Amino acid sequence: MEKRGTLPDKIDRLEPKVRRGLIVVITGNGKGKTTSALGMALRACGHGMKVGIIQFMKGDLYAGEWDGVKKMTCDIELFATGKGFCGIQGNPYSRAEHRANAQDAIDLAREKIAEETYDLLILDEINNALKLRLVDLEQILEIVRSKPPLLHLILTGRDAHPEIIELADTVSEVREIKHAYRKDIEPQPGVDY
Amino acid sequence: MEKRGTLPDKIDRLEPKVRRGLIVVITGNGKGKTTSALGMALRACGHGMKVGIIQFMKGDLYAGEWDGVKKMTCDIELFATGKGFCGIQGNPYSRAEHRANAQDAIDLAREKIAEETYDLLILDEINNALKLRLVDLEQILEIVRSKPPLLHLILTGRDAHPEIIELADTVSEVREIKHAYRKDIEPQPGVDY
Repeated sequence: MEKRGTLPDKIDRLEPKVRRGLIVVITGNGKGKTTSALGMALRACGHGMKVGIIQFMKGDLYAGEWDGVKKMTCDIELFATGKGFCGIQGNPYSRAEHRANAQDAIDLAREKIAEETYDLLILDEINNALKLRLVDLEQILEIVRSKPPLLHLILTGRDAHPEIIELADTVSEVREIKHAYRKDIEPQPGVDY
Repeated sequence: MEKRGTLPDKIDRLEPKVRRGLIVVITGNGKGKTTSALGMALRACGHGMKVGIIQFMKGDLYAGEWDGVKKMTCDIELFATGKGFCGIQGNPYSRAEHRANAQDAIDLAREKIAEETYDLLILDEINNALKLRLVDLEQILEIVRSKPPLLHLILTGRDAHPEIIELADTVSEVREIKHAYRKDIEPQPGVDY
């Protein structure tokens, strides 16, 4: 890797006998759900895979990943939709507006899945969008059930629904042990957004 | 973002009044620790920050992030060191050899920190390396305590030591709810490596 670090000379490579598109759910109240999904995007990019990221309820506030994906020389698309978290104090948009945005994001996900555009698709904060009833359980279940067999589908956000957990192959719960904001440290670029 | 997706026209930007370099620990037995650190790398890259990744005990087995970072047009370096997990069945290297590798990685971390090369430094699997006594608690504490104030330091791996958790600003525990390998699904590129 020249000036980009060092890698060993002799390495083994895993290659699964059977390729599978996994359903991965990243939930819980701790820091590292979207971040973990972004890490899978970076990893998939390394494997030459095509990656899509559809963010729900996140179109109002700049996040580093928006420019991060622009700096990746691979097939990656990011769609930041919505207008922030529905029901959070200070958010000026109506529930109807939040729901309309989330429904547009669902339509986009369906369309991209039908086109078989991606090898890995991240539906960021979709669990949360369901909890807030901006999307319906049946809509997500239909997406999960109808996905192409080799597509990896990553669903992030707090409060993942039990029926989605049931369908998933891998589920992680990210628990908060500590968070800097509890010490009144403001969100810091690079780590928090 | 043109063909790379869509972003909204009107966005707010957070900008902390006080910049802080955070100490972040990602621990637990679930999938998404290294992955989460890689997501911070992508995010930091978007912010124009300089990123270093030093992987402990991981130099023997190819991972997608090795090529992923090569596909990022930003200041990012990855050093994959070590020869796999010490004590895992089938791993042919002696404990002394594993420890020597981990000690080299500690030296590298010290050197990079002293040079103030990075804005964000990931010490991947270092918690695990400590648990396996390939590095010493005092070595990690010294690194954490002596880091430049604005450097974000990310420490990943199972079984994070309580004294490191104590020093950290943000700590997440990634718990396994389900994992595909329990259904005998082999590790899949893009998601698992």
